[in-house]
Amino acid sequence: MGVVIPLEEGKNKQASVKPLVDLTRPDMERVNQLILSKAGSDVQMIPEVANHLISSGGKRLRPMLTLASAAMFGYEGEGHIKLATSVEFLHTATLLHDDVVDESDLRRGKSTARTIWGNQASVLVGDFLLGQSFRMMVEVGSLDALDVLSTASAVIAEGEVLQLSVAKKMETTEDDYLSVIRAKTAALFAAAAEVGPIIAGTDRSTRNALKSYGMNLGLAFQLVDDVLDYGGKAVDLGKNVGDDFREGKITLPVILSWRRGTDDERAFWRKAIEQGDSSDANLEKALGLITKYGGLTDTIARAEHYGAMARDALAPLPDGPHKNALMEVIDFCISRVN
Amino acid sequence: MGVVIPLEEGKNKQASVKPLVDLTRPDMERVNQLILSKAGSDVQMIPEVANHLISSGGKRLRPMLTLASAAMFGYEGEGHIKLATSVEFLHTATLLHDDVVDESDLRRGKSTARTIWGNQASVLVGDFLLGQSFRMMVEVGSLDALDVLSTASAVIAEGEVLQLSVAKKMETTEDDYLSVIRAKTAALFAAAAEVGPIIAGTDRSTRNALKSYGMNLGLAFQLVDDVLDYGGKAVDLGKNVGDDFREGKITLPVILSWRRGTDDERAFWRKAIEQGDSSDANLEKALGLITKYGGLTDTIARAEHYGAMARDALAPLPDGPHKNALMEVIDFCISRVN
Repeated sequence: MGVVIPLEEGKNKQASVKPLVDLTRPDMERVNQLILSKAGSDVQMIPEVANHLISSGGKRLRPMLTLASAAMFGYEGEGHIKLATSVEFLHTATLLHDDVVDESDLRRGKSTARTIWGNQASVLVGDFLLGQSFRMMVEVGSLDALDVLSTASAVIAEGEVLQLSVAKKMETTEDDYLSVIRAKTAALFAAAAEVGPIIAGTDRSTRNALKSYGMNLGLAFQLVDDVLDYGGKAVDLGKNVGDDFREGKITLPVILSWRRGTDDERAFWRKAIEQGDSSDANLEKALGLITKYGGLTDTIARAEHYGAMARDALAPLPDGPHKNALMEVIDFCISRVN
Repeated sequence: MGVVIPLEEGKNKQASVKPLVDLTRPDMERVNQLILSKAGSDVQMIPEVANHLISSGGKRLRPMLTLASAAMFGYEGEGHIKLATSVEFLHTATLLHDDVVDESDLRRGKSTARTIWGNQASVLVGDFLLGQSFRMMVEVGSLDALDVLSTASAVIAEGEVLQLSVAKKMETTEDDYLSVIRAKTAALFAAAAEVGPIIAGTDRSTRNALKSYGMNLGLAFQLVDDVLDYGGKAVDLGKNVGDDFREGKITLPVILSWRRGTDDERAFWRKAIEQGDSSDANLEKALGLITKYGGLTDTIARAEHYGAMARDALAPLPDGPHKNALMEVIDFCISRVN
């Protein structure tokens, strides 16, 4: 079942992604090789565009979930490498298309592909990566894994469209918002964690435990991401502070502040978000209102709730280094804001 | 093996798609139902955007190829309905993304989805249909069919990117152009025709025959489409005459006219296509040069060559109504220009 790497970090240390990175390192090297190889094409523009985003230094959390969740149940084949790469390609394709949809100029501190090669190339190279992703899943040959990942790909797109249709609508409820992030973000985390036990041949309840872990981890991850968009530390992540505000995206910090605010404040939000008056002065004011109503701290509290659900989803499974690493990732995701 | 419908049309009649339509009618009704059902979503914008394009009256030639090529070998299950729908969804997703990439305002005489709902919705609903397409393939459960269709989806995107990278390049050779249309159009025709014998469980040489038929039919189809873009009858198809010219797309009529032209004429093409001087006067002049060098008639001759290859690919297979209908579709595709 692979090498057991002792977890030396005590509970009092800052939660880290390091145990997961260490455990999956040899496999991730193979995933990274496969990413480069499958982003290749005789059509020169394809590897150029794909590698621009691929090499821009994402954490590759999703493929690590697949690798760890396969290894956790003693999987010894080769399929986890391809499925982890498929998961990362689904994610990369989504990012390429998202940047077109959001008209974003920066991602992880670098120019987006669309600002360099245009929207056209971003759409089409995204489609190519989707196709390559499905080809790799097919090569693995598990119809159950194919079912989980193809369903995730449809659900992600559905979530993005839902996000589009609630955009700039201040009446959006927390439940509406949860439907969006469950589909656009958490579904892929859930699928990434579920396909590991699937190819390892575990029973249904184990699959469901990992799926539930991934789903709730994904929700916590996205909630924290939405906090970071309004937080000082976002600059470190190469994201523009207030991107969501300027795009009229309704995230939980805004939802809470709007619902808890006065009539005058709600009128301000409508003007800023619905009518797109997103000047720097209005961003300042928005940040003031979010702070006044605890929009960031309470969003983090919500994230902690989903983190707790993720933890309890894993709890009954046998102890071991993979379980420990997956547990620590929950705290790591949430502690990014502190 | 289903009802045998006599082919009453004699050889001297105009080739028609009608025998194929008649043979596949009961199955196509089920495909059309499934299309509507699988384009459904609680996210209201998804069926709106999808049905706009789906209801705009395409011929649905590709799913008919799948249905006929399964029935031809006595297939009696349910998988051909889902695979035919998957094929049509792959095609529809490509059209949604193409309209964004080409910045097209009209398709089949109707406003494109992107002019009504925006580029964002077109990209994302296309992604949703891709996801739904793969889910249906997975439900059928044939890994061979999944392999063929997922490979086609990657190849189509690769072809679109290749088209982007040769766009506005007058030196594009006929071979470059063939690489583009083989990938962006013919690969899906080939896959649509190949998955029928796959689920019917035929031997490899039969699969290859249908694949070769589809590939060459697809090449002929695209060549004729490119002629229609410069031809008077294109108006009937709801396409703008000269769309390709205005978009700087290098199709075979242009390639032939450029290669056969004088230095002065080549300078004109560079100005018109490479520098985008695509005024109506220049379109007139381009049409004159294309006529002068037989660009349309010779492109049709090339289409007839691929039509002959498609015919010989099918020739050794057992005679019957499905084979006859598939044969007649070859002539129908080519005769659209006459």
